[in-house]
Amino acid sequence: MEQKPRILTGMRPTGPLHLGHYVGALENWITLQEKYACYFLIADYQALGDYSDDIPRIRQSVIDVTLDWLAVGLNPNDHKFVIQSYIPEHAELAMLLGTLVTLPRLHRNPTLKGEMDQQKASDITVAFYTYPVSQVADILLPKAHLVPVGEDQMPHIELTREVARKFNRTYEDIFPEPKGLVGRIPRLVGIDGQAKMSKSLDNAIYLSDDKETVNQKVRRMFTDPTRLRATDPGHVENNPVFMYHDAFNTDHAQLEDLKTRYRAGRVGDVEVKNILAEHLNNFLDPIREKRHYYEKNPSLVRDALLQGTNHAKILAEETMREVRESMGIKQYV
Amino acid sequence: MEQKPRILTGMRPTGPLHLGHYVGALENWITLQEKYACYFLIADYQALGDYSDDIPRIRQSVIDVTLDWLAVGLNPNDHKFVIQSYIPEHAELAMLLGTLVTLPRLHRNPTLKGEMDQQKASDITVAFYTYPVSQVADILLPKAHLVPVGEDQMPHIELTREVARKFNRTYEDIFPEPKGLVGRIPRLVGIDGQAKMSKSLDNAIYLSDDKETVNQKVRRMFTDPTRLRATDPGHVENNPVFMYHDAFNTDHAQLEDLKTRYRAGRVGDVEVKNILAEHLNNFLDPIREKRHYYEKNPSLVRDALLQGTNHAKILAEETMREVRESMGIKQYV
Repeated sequence: MEQKPRILTGMRPTGPLHLGHYVGALENWITLQEKYACYFLIADYQALGDYSDDIPRIRQSVIDVTLDWLAVGLNPNDHKFVIQSYIPEHAELAMLLGTLVTLPRLHRNPTLKGEMDQQKASDITVAFYTYPVSQVADILLPKAHLVPVGEDQMPHIELTREVARKFNRTYEDIFPEPKGLVGRIPRLVGIDGQAKMSKSLDNAIYLSDDKETVNQKVRRMFTDPTRLRATDPGHVENNPVFMYHDAFNTDHAQLEDLKTRYRAGRVGDVEVKNILAEHLNNFLDPIREKRHYYEKNPSLVRDALLQGTNHAKILAEETMREVRESMGIKQYV
Repeated sequence: MEQKPRILTGMRPTGPLHLGHYVGALENWITLQEKYACYFLIADYQALGDYSDDIPRIRQSVIDVTLDWLAVGLNPNDHKFVIQSYIPEHAELAMLLGTLVTLPRLHRNPTLKGEMDQQKASDITVAFYTYPVSQVADILLPKAHLVPVGEDQMPHIELTREVARKFNRTYEDIFPEPKGLVGRIPRLVGIDGQAKMSKSLDNAIYLSDDKETVNQKVRRMFTDPTRLRATDPGHVENNPVFMYHDAFNTDHAQLEDLKTRYRAGRVGDVEVKNILAEHLNNFLDPIREKRHYYEKNPSLVRDALLQGTNHAKILAEETMREVRESMGIKQYV
């Protein structure tokens, strides 16, 4: 098999991807994809944990997410895209690793805790509650060395490292302890300044937004609430418009000049926003073009998914053989 | 496929089977095996939930349980014995059905609750905590109509019926609602009069015990603690020796006579016990003989396990195709 170290990362297909996904994770994936053997997982089974009442959304998003991945420049020719539900070994390994995770350990996971607090206690399902263990299995199944993820996923990586150590100590040493890697901008605020871009808050700019949509969304963006007129001195810090400039304006001289003028009350929000919209559209243009190409060639999308998944399935079977052998199960007769 | 209604039942391979298993469950299995298409599951993955630190015990017990099943007269030629760990679809379906079970619903299960109370809270694993859902999947995977089980498993059957209804209502109507069936004697006390036979309490008579062992264990049995001499009037009720007589003495006239004399103080414990031991050994003799035969022919045991498992695997794949189709997942591309 390939000698490169391995990456496992992935996303839940619950909607189109946005700029936050790009600077928080995808950018890393693109940079690292040649140096590593990469497994990019479409976690459709995991999405069922809280979207089992909206499966059409998951179905549509499997394709949307794949298009977004291809559009940003992930290379489909290297067996990389994997559909979780096509590989039952994910569930099997999750079940086995569930013997190594206690309930108190699961509760110590701040991300899970936060997510549970946002739901009605009576609605939380077994599938949702145990999803961190399922994520551990996703990572260990291809024996990943590196997991580039969003900031809120880091507690799951920590759990993965612990489970790998516990398995290696209890049975045989077969799993690398994977490292997590957070992107350049761990969390990009929404255009309304809220902490997280999300579909339900309608505050996200999607990688698939067209030029006019981006322009409109940038016009709607929150800026410095203390500034009433363009001649008032403004704050650059915690100002969503400048946060986006920091993330996507590649002309550093221009950006420094804008910040200086903004602080001095010598530039209006409209100009700052227009320049941002231009940079965003410049960034998104090649992505749109690639997306368009793959939308016109659905068989390429299909091939990317099926080839990647078939490849991952072989690897999954290999790992499961090793897991069972080192645990000493399933060679009864 | 077969037109008979289906039975799914099974046992966890955690030790040899005892008389309690026989009157609580196996007897029903034997009676029903010709009228139903039967799937007898060796739940080795489920056993890991609390025996992951003693896998050699599980390994040994897979064979012991199979020998016990064959010895009591389960028919191996009809594709019946199934090893859970050979069929990853069990874990896959459990994961999917976990989206239909909320945590409060899981907590309403008195059997799980009781078992959790017996463990140190900090030791309870995710695998153990979620085992009732895994049992639901075991039952629904072959679309069982009837589940002959021990008394304490009935809450799991109730959960299974609920999950089947919820699945049928939410997606498509594909699962029968299985009925549970408890054996003639739901719970046979241990020889020490304790509520349950168990290996750790050393109070069980095993189907594989030889004649001398049975005689010794019967001599050790608790009787009426209020009776000091053979001439004292004795109590038959709640007297373990008479409970066993009720279960295994097929000579009803003899048994009635013994009870009358015991109540009147006209028979000693020794005589009552000797007669019980004789009946137990008469009952066990053909079982021992069959066990001996299969021990001498391990390839028959192997064939029974592998043929049954292969057959169940085909059925499992069929059900999973139907499950995915009715949920509308996994036909993305």
